[in-house]
Amino acid sequence: MTSSNSLHVRIADPFWSPYIQLVKNIVLPYQWDALNDSIKGAEPSHAIRNFRIAAGEEHGEFGGMVFQDSDVYKWLEAVGFMLQAEPDMELEQVADDVIELLEKAQRPDGYLNTYFTLKEPDGRWTNLAECHELYCAGHLFEAGVAYYQSTGKRKLLDICCRYADYIDTVFGSEPGKLQGYDGHQEIELALMKLYEATGEMRYLRLSQFFLDERGKQPGFYGQEFVKRGKKVHFPELDIVHDLKYSQAHLPVRQQDTAVGHAVRAVYMCTGMAHVAAVTQDEGLIEACRKLWSNMVRKQMYITGAIGAMAYGESFTIDYDLPNDTIYGETCASIGLIFFAKRMLDLEPRSEYADVLERALYNAVLSGMARDGKHFFYVNPLEVYPKAIQINPKYAHVKLQRQPWFGCSCCPPNIARLIASLNHYVYSQRDTILYTHLYIGSEANVVLGEQHVTVVQSSDYTTDGCVRFRVQTEKASAAFTLALRLPEWSNRMDYRVNGVRYEPDMIRDGYGFITRDWQNGDTIDLQFDMTVRRVKGHPLIRQTAGQIALQRGPFIYCVEEADNGKELHLFQLQGDNTCKVEYDSNLLGGVYKIMAPAKRVEVPLEEEYLYFNDAQWKLHPVQSTFIPYYAWGNRGAGEMRVWVKEG
Amino acid sequence: MTSSNSLHVRIADPFWSPYIQLVKNIVLPYQWDALNDSIKGAEPSHAIRNFRIAAGEEHGEFGGMVFQDSDVYKWLEAVGFMLQAEPDMELEQVADDVIELLEKAQRPDGYLNTYFTLKEPDGRWTNLAECHELYCAGHLFEAGVAYYQSTGKRKLLDICCRYADYIDTVFGSEPGKLQGYDGHQEIELALMKLYEATGEMRYLRLSQFFLDERGKQPGFYGQEFVKRGKKVHFPELDIVHDLKYSQAHLPVRQQDTAVGHAVRAVYMCTGMAHVAAVTQDEGLIEACRKLWSNMVRKQMYITGAIGAMAYGESFTIDYDLPNDTIYGETCASIGLIFFAKRMLDLEPRSEYADVLERALYNAVLSGMARDGKHFFYVNPLEVYPKAIQINPKYAHVKLQRQPWFGCSCCPPNIARLIASLNHYVYSQRDTILYTHLYIGSEANVVLGEQHVTVVQSSDYTTDGCVRFRVQTEKASAAFTLALRLPEWSNRMDYRVNGVRYEPDMIRDGYGFITRDWQNGDTIDLQFDMTVRRVKGHPLIRQTAGQIALQRGPFIYCVEEADNGKELHLFQLQGDNTCKVEYDSNLLGGVYKIMAPAKRVEVPLEEEYLYFNDAQWKLHPVQSTFIPYYAWGNRGAGEMRVWVKEG
Repeated sequence: MTSSNSLHVRIADPFWSPYIQLVKNIVLPYQWDALNDSIKGAEPSHAIRNFRIAAGEEHGEFGGMVFQDSDVYKWLEAVGFMLQAEPDMELEQVADDVIELLEKAQRPDGYLNTYFTLKEPDGRWTNLAECHELYCAGHLFEAGVAYYQSTGKRKLLDICCRYADYIDTVFGSEPGKLQGYDGHQEIELALMKLYEATGEMRYLRLSQFFLDERGKQPGFYGQEFVKRGKKVHFPELDIVHDLKYSQAHLPVRQQDTAVGHAVRAVYMCTGMAHVAAVTQDEGLIEACRKLWSNMVRKQMYITGAIGAMAYGESFTIDYDLPNDTIYGETCASIGLIFFAKRMLDLEPRSEYADVLERALYNAVLSGMARDGKHFFYVNPLEVYPKAIQINPKYAHVKLQRQPWFGCSCCPPNIARLIASLNHYVYSQRDTILYTHLYIGSEANVVLGEQHVTVVQSSDYTTDGCVRFRVQTEKASAAFTLALRLPEWSNRMDYRVNGVRYEPDMIRDGYGFITRDWQNGDTIDLQFDMTVRRVKGHPLIRQTAGQIALQRGPFIYCVEEADNGKELHLFQLQGDNTCKVEYDSNLLGGVYKIMAPAKRVEVPLEEEYLYFNDAQWKLHPVQSTFIPYYAWGNRGAGEMRVWVKEG
Repeated sequence: MTSSNSLHVRIADPFWSPYIQLVKNIVLPYQWDALNDSIKGAEPSHAIRNFRIAAGEEHGEFGGMVFQDSDVYKWLEAVGFMLQAEPDMELEQVADDVIELLEKAQRPDGYLNTYFTLKEPDGRWTNLAECHELYCAGHLFEAGVAYYQSTGKRKLLDICCRYADYIDTVFGSEPGKLQGYDGHQEIELALMKLYEATGEMRYLRLSQFFLDERGKQPGFYGQEFVKRGKKVHFPELDIVHDLKYSQAHLPVRQQDTAVGHAVRAVYMCTGMAHVAAVTQDEGLIEACRKLWSNMVRKQMYITGAIGAMAYGESFTIDYDLPNDTIYGETCASIGLIFFAKRMLDLEPRSEYADVLERALYNAVLSGMARDGKHFFYVNPLEVYPKAIQINPKYAHVKLQRQPWFGCSCCPPNIARLIASLNHYVYSQRDTILYTHLYIGSEANVVLGEQHVTVVQSSDYTTDGCVRFRVQTEKASAAFTLALRLPEWSNRMDYRVNGVRYEPDMIRDGYGFITRDWQNGDTIDLQFDMTVRRVKGHPLIRQTAGQIALQRGPFIYCVEEADNGKELHLFQLQGDNTCKVEYDSNLLGGVYKIMAPAKRVEVPLEEEYLYFNDAQWKLHPVQSTFIPYYAWGNRGAGEMRVWVKEG
């Protein structure tokens, strides 16, 4: 059973709407300039130019990475999402022009990839392990579906189908076809979107094929490696032989532990969960649950970041979560959100939405500055600037967000996620409307036999109040609202039309209210916004003896700008009351937490480095916490999420 | 004022004598086989063969590293020290043969370096920054002095002097001479030894020249780099431009912070302190004190390890002492001992001996297994095997000691230190005999006008008892015994001839007893062997909230073999009494500490990774600590020095 397509959501939210406007007004135009090599001081992208050359409109050589095409596709996809939210004739015209260009660049057989067309015309499908050929195709398909669904225009979708049809003639279990799969998962999830947009079963089957082929031994990478004369594209990595890096070490149904490159892992899981939701394939469902469980119960940071090490941008081992040398790529947390969304489609359980929300409000949001022009790829939970500056074990960690064009994967990924945020608020199963995220919005949906509008007005991020207002076509409508009880809220008060109400049922973390709803009915929810003192699982070495503060969906952190240097000297008491205060002058307006703390007094004498039976003096101090996502906006300074328990 | 040469010490100590025998019976023969490429399975050293080729006794090409000669020199030096302790005709004959070979390999002008002679005959003195030419010369000089002082044979010393005289014609501030210095300090300290052995002032001046030249700008490395056509020997490093790496960023007198490659830094300081002690050069003395102070008060691990990062095997910044990604090279702690010894010669203050002892009993001793055939280069204070195995940030960390021939710097360095340990026990200033280390031994020394023998019998490492017995030539002898009060001992009880005695003076950490000593007089010392709970300076982020245990000179650690996995779950109470117990079956016999502790109970349910307001259950357990130096001898397992304070 899959979610219905009748659901349409428009976001109007005090917290999120400014971000959506930022993506529309700043990020997308900025990215367009980048794709056209017109940002001064930035390395040229070559991306649009590659397509112009492939289309015969310009002479020249391919430029950029082997996967450069995908930047154009991700931009187009974000535009597609954005046009759904708000028409924009000018933007749509730019997109239409790009689509025309793609059409011209597409080969007569449907193939579309500027790297191989321009640089290695005889090299098609010879290096799947390293060259992102199907990965790029996948991003094209995602763009095609988004653009079609928002504008109704089929041209890009047709380009996609021609390409997908061609790929279907190349890959498959039939004799004479290639039994391979891409080194970077993406096409699996994209084919599922294409299948849903077109109803074409071959796309579903092709997605299943790629998933089922993955990890069979002897491995495909090794075979094609020998066949192409052992040429290597990325000599600094060992993608061909390090099978765990791209989760090709085991058939996907046998995988139960998140390993390797985190983005690849979550993209793969997203495809698996989508296939599983559509096919109800028990083996695949079970593998999804196991991988999910390992990922979020043993290898996820409190911010929703994943990928504990820089090497291979990878998972490491259970309960190993270093806060300072973490990779925690923004894209990986975005992929975790994709995975969570597909798991919600498979089985609506609040734990998926809890993780989705955790990653969204913390690790992902941390990835972009409020100016829309600066980005983190790596999202650490602890920075000590002087150590980061001298020790190359921190080479991947930046103290401040970088201009987005330095590398192009995370910024457009944030853009397309925020542009499509309306897809994550609700899902529908028959006559149940599930609310996963409390984001101000208007949802139009067919429930039972009529169109219903659910208007959500949310002060979720500030005081935990959310109001739903139901508008029915007829006088009343019988359906169920399933309202997620966030993991972080100890209680949830429901009022229907102002009167306290106990939900009719609580199941899988959702409170169910089933009624014959009258036009204008309201539900008010109040969550518990008390500041939470969170501890990590005892097996996490790196959080032992420490506390993190959380309020609502936000994980908090301490920064040097508010608390001075040497943040490790702070100790938080377990029993003191925190004060929460809105500061309109701070970081564009945030709720800060003022927590009574103690600070170890640093001995003035510098005679000794080690002390016998010392009892340090502790000074009572006020510590100030800000939401984690807002860190690193006030110059390079210390930051930490986990603070010692006093 | 320098220490007298009348002092001769022979060690006979229950703790150290077995190590000295190990070096004599196992390490030196083993190393000799290695130098002669006759150890099966080991990469050939080429070292002796290089000399044979250079001597015209064999045909072939140079093999090994650019500094391969130094392995032979370090071995010869250790043999020299060992022959001082105990005659060995066979060993001496082998050494004499090698010395003859060196004589044949030496060029007519005195030059001696097989790499340049065989491989780059026109390349002499063209790449001081990278090619260790003067470094190798320095190790030759150290060997020559040690061999001369133990055997009285001059042949090797003469080879050294010819080479030193030649170097003196090449380098210097006079016009036409090279104004340069070596990229790896060593010749500075070695020339000082050669100066003291020969009385030749030119060697002192040449050492001063190299020290004073270092760090002048514009830098020498850059000049010779351009002159040789910008050829680079170690392309993976940037020795020519990264001046801090070899402490060439500032004139040595202006340096006040330990930076760069730790071994280079301490070798440089050793040379500086030796020159300073001889010349009483105030500027140099002050620089030595500042570098010492920064090194041991802000950048030294509790084990006496130095060098907090793998990159460049280097110091990082003040109070930055990660226990898991530490470099902590055995050679660096040995160099710290050299430096401490020279500072003691400069000014006898117990803090130098305290650090010397700390490094010796912990970081250095950890470097060698009791079989004399396995070694650590890196001495971590915390290992978590599963993380080390997967994350390349730990690539330099080994869980078990490696066969010594894997790389050849640390093993012969340990060998020559242990073989010369008798040089570190005492020093003499006029009629004061300073005791720096409590190691069972017999010291013969001229004090005042007669030969005096001081026999030290020590149970220092086991129960903190030390007895001195004075033997005089005449009926009595007037002199002062200055006895170090170790930093770790809260008190020190003195008894002279069995009667409680207050020292006549306590100065700079030494108790002075001045008497007209009668033949047979005894002094008994009793140190406080109570287990100490040590804390790191509050500014050390990596020890915050943790305790280390120390007993006598030994730092302790917990290992998985005694305590099970997940050692971070242990919490030590501050007020409980530890039990100390000798276990003859454990690690060749050690005193273990049984400390009452609590262990966090790991929740059985694996539903969550983060917990709201959790209070973990604590179980009382017995924790077992072993001396740090003995870690890693029972298979790959967890270990940590710092344990949470409960």
